[in-house]
Order: sequence, then structure tokens, then C-alpha cells
Amino acid sequence: MTGLSHCYPVRVYYEDSDAGGVVYHANYLKFMERARTEFLRTGGFEQDELDARHGILFAVAEANIRYLRPARFNEQLQVESRIVEASGVQVTFAQQVRRIGDGELLVEGSVRVACMDRAGKPRRMPADISRFFHQHLDIPKENS
Amino acid sequence: MTGLSHCYPVRVYYEDSDAGGVVYHANYLKFMERARTEFLRTGGFEQDELDARHGILFAVAEANIRYLRPARFNEQLQVESRIVEASGVQVTFAQQVRRIGDGELLVEGSVRVACMDRAGKPRRMPADISRFFHQHLDIPKENS
Amino acid sequence: MTGLSHCYPVRVYYEDSDAGGVVYHANYLKFMERARTEFLRTGGFEQDELDARHGILFAVAEANIRYLRPARFNEQLQVESRIVEASGVQVTFAQQVRRIGDGELLVEGSVRVACMDRAGKPRRMPADISRFFHQHLDIPKENS
Amino acid sequence: MTGLSHCYPVRVYYEDSDAGGVVYHANYLKFMERARTEFLRTGGFEQDELDARHGILFAVAEANIRYLRPARFNEQLQVESRIVEASGVQVTFAQQVRRIGDGELLVEGSVRVACMDRAGKPRRMPADISRFFHQHLDIPKENS
Repeated sequence: MTGLSHCYPVRVYYEDSDAGGVVYHANYLKFMERARTEFLRTGGFEQDELDARHGILFAVAEANIRYLRPARFNEQLQVESRIVEASGVQVTFAQQVRRIGDGELLVEGSVRVACMDRAGKPRRMPADISRFFHQHLDIPKENS
Repeated sequence: MTGLSHCYPVRVYYEDSDAGGVVYHANYLKFMERARTEFLRTGGFEQDELDARHGILFAVAEANIRYLRPARFNEQLQVESRIVEASGVQVTFAQQVRRIGDGELLVEGSVRVACMDRAGKPRRMPADISRFFHQHLDIPKENS
Repeated sequence: MTGLSHCYPVRVYYEDSDAGGVVYHANYLKFMERARTEFLRTGGFEQDELDARHGILFAVAEANIRYLRPARFNEQLQVESRIVEASGVQVTFAQQVRRIGDGELLVEGSVRVACMDRAGKPRRMPADISRFFHQHLDIPKENS
Repeated sequence: MTGLSHCYPVRVYYEDSDAGGVVYHANYLKFMERARTEFLRTGGFEQDELDARHGILFAVAEANIRYLRPARFNEQLQVESRIVEASGVQVTFAQQVRRIGDGELLVEGSVRVACMDRAGKPRRMPADISRFFHQHLDIPKENS
């Protein structure tokens, strides 16, 4: 974690778990998206406004996830997010989900997000968002 | 079950279960909505077309659910749906979720659905849907 | 809201919304369960410990929900929870979901939760939890 | 698609969509898991029995997903699954989600699944499942 990374806490509720007693694998993608949303919010960017004003949204174009250890019901997790690649039309986040307390790394991956209009056509993102992503661009230190 | 009721099969997948080893309570509402969607489809009504042509959608206005016995991962369930009340603006379904095989009643409830426009304002439903609901109106035989 | 009620904030993320642009109706049940979990936590009760030590869990036995107005993507909500009935084996919460800011009431309902073992058999809850529920018992002021 | 691939149909319901009007990206992982479950079932393997008899389950260890085009509410999809790698402890599926009708490829990816016990420790899978996976091993024809 560097000064450029963003941390977002997640509590595991019943809704997140499955019959294996652990967090259902697809639900980490939800945690990671909540974290990206809050990362954007630190820059003052609200996605409902981006849609209303500019007619754009950020859609996940690619996700590569490794599940290392399971998170369990009621645990407290933390999602750490860094921006590892950014252009005028897309941005890639490296994200790690850790257990709060022992800091154990549970899940890590990269998520590439593309700016598009409501019809699904690629669009250049507004200059201020693009600037924000570039300012927070972090040099990846591991292959996540 | 009468000739007016509609049956929809559901398989319980991992995504539906929780750490208690049973179907998470909120997910029965999903099963029940899938069933209502398929009930409508038997009348030739596609909800994406209703939105595109008439600008309307059916929103859940009230749900009263009793959870009697839990469904478990990998079980096969059946949702039985009857229409127990219908007007030009809303319709109430009585729905039961049973385990296929022994027919055990697991969850039952009523769901009232209202026709509205995209802004959330009540709207009269198209005449052919209203007719469909009235033709399938069933007299409730139990207090569900 | 009284001194006996518990407040829990919820942010609406993409995962919570549906194609109608609003929070999917089943997801309010998730918000309401998160709130009940945090209510219990204020009394020092952790549900993973209850399971590990006493082999019990709280299962939803009944939910009666009225959907008054839709919540939208990115809004901030608040779940207000009160205990309106409690016995040694079950407890009923009255819960309201409001929009933070204007305080608009969006969804309200009651959820009855029963104490059971892992096999689904009713069990008396530990004395300290039962005491906690009774201490927080609130006289309902509306028919929720 | 070859004779070794498995097809599983999916209808997009309201629960699957998000405020963008398309299927929420995490939900494709659910569709893909349903398809793997049904693939296993064609071999006579029921995951609840594997857990009860052998104390094992299959956990997702890695998922690499590319989102090419969005699926929309009410569309009919098909998940095509092939086994592209198999050992005694894990198996990798290549999976494609296509729209039924025009066959448009929407989402594709690979999912590596590992056999483990309830404590999360790797376990060799039973010989008959391992044999099933090897019999259905398909040579990948694209880089999915």
C-alpha cells in the first residue's frame, strides 16, 4: 500500500456468504466495485451525476481475480485499490481484499473499467476525471 | 393448486444459499419474481416490450412472506402462483414455494404489484394485460 | 424514532439497483438484515460467536414489507429499527428505510426473527440476548 | 463449440440487471457457476452429496473474465462450458456467454476451480469425478 492507494472497509453479512460458510466468490466483485465507487467519490465524482450530466457510465470490461483464502461471515475486510493504468477511455484498478486484524490477503485482482454511453459505445471520459486517474496512477509493485 | 395457478421450477444454486446452509431469505423474493415474470409470459407479455412500447413497469408495492421451512443447496423447488386480486392499476399474487419431490411447503406469501411509469407514477395497465389478470383471477382458498 | 431505535446508514451501490433504475425490491431485505445485525452488535452480540458457542442462529420467520417510494442508485439511506415484540424464542423488528437528507420514508415493514439450531429446530435464546431485546422493547406508534 | 462442450440456458430477470439497464457484471459469475453445476450433474455428480459423503466442495480459485457486450433484461442467454485443464485437485473451465438468437458473444472467461475440504485445505477429488473431467477435456481453440 502506498499513499496513492485507497482503503474501503467491508463487513461480511449473511447476504454475502454461501452454504460453504464463506463469502460467495462473485460477491467480492461487489466489494471491489463499492471500493472503486468510493475511490471516485474522494475526487468529488458522483456516478449518478456523471450519467445525468454527461450521459456516461463506467462499465467493467475485464476482471482477473485470484481467490487465495476465504473470508467468513461476520469478518471485517478491507479493499485496497490502486490505479495501475489509465487512458482517456479506460482505467485499470489493482485491488486487494484483506482481513482486518491480521491483514491476511484473501483475494486480489485487477479490474479494467471503460467509459461508455448508455448505448454501450466507448466514450472519452471528462477531463477532470481523467486528470484524477492520472494523478493517482500508481506503479504496480506486484503482478496484480 | 387449481387450473388457474402457474408453476415455475427453481433449482437452488450456491449463489442462493447462505452460511446457515439454507436459501437466504431475501432470495425467495427473487424466485417469486421469476415466477411472476414467467406467468406473464404465458399470456404473451414481455416486460421489456411493455417498457419500450408503453413506458410502464410493474413494481412490487407490498410483500408479506412467511418462512416455514428452509430450502437447502441443490434442492429443486417449485413456485406456485395464483392471482387473488386485480384492478386496472395493480394485481396481487399469492405464491407458494414448495420442495419438488415431497411437495413440502417452505415459503408462502402474497405480493402486490403496481403498474407505474419510469418516474414511479401509478399508471393504468394496458387493457390486454388487465384482461389477462382478470381471466386468471383465482378465489383464495387459504389465508395466503 | 425514539431513544430505543437503532439507525444504520446504507449507501446504494450499482449492485443494489435494477433495470428500473431503482433499488431491487428484494435488496431492502438485505439492508434491513444488516441493520438488525448491527443492532445486535450494539449489545455485544456477534452472530458467528452465537453459532460457535451455542449452536444457534436467528432465522427470518416472517417479513411484511411495504414499498412506498423507490430509492435510486448512489443515494444514502438510513434503516431505523425498533423492537416491537420479544419472547424467549423470537423477536419482531419494525424497520423503516428513509432517504438521508429529506428523510423521506421509502420502505417500511416488520420482520419476525426466530432463534433456531442448525437443524432448523426452535431454540430458546440465551438469557443475555433475551434481556437485551426486552430492554430495547419499544411500544409501536404506527401500524408497521 | 465441440461435442465436449456443455450448454446451459439462462433467462435474464430483473434481479440480474442494474441501473445501467444491463446485467450487473458480477452476476455473470453466477450464471457461469450454475452452468458448471449442471455440467457436473450430467456426469451424475451432485455437490450436496459430494459434501455429505466426501466432505469436499469445489471452490473458485481464479476467474478471468472479459466483458465484450452487455446482456439486457429479459434476454435469453446461453452459457457454453468446456474443460480446458484438469488435474487431481483442480479443473479449469473456459466459458462463453452468448445471446440466444443471434449467437452474439457477450462475455467470455476461464474459471479455475479447486477441490477442498470444509476447512479450505486442498483435497484430491474422488477418482470418478477426476475421470469425468479428463474424459471431457477439450483442446482450447482460442485464448479464453
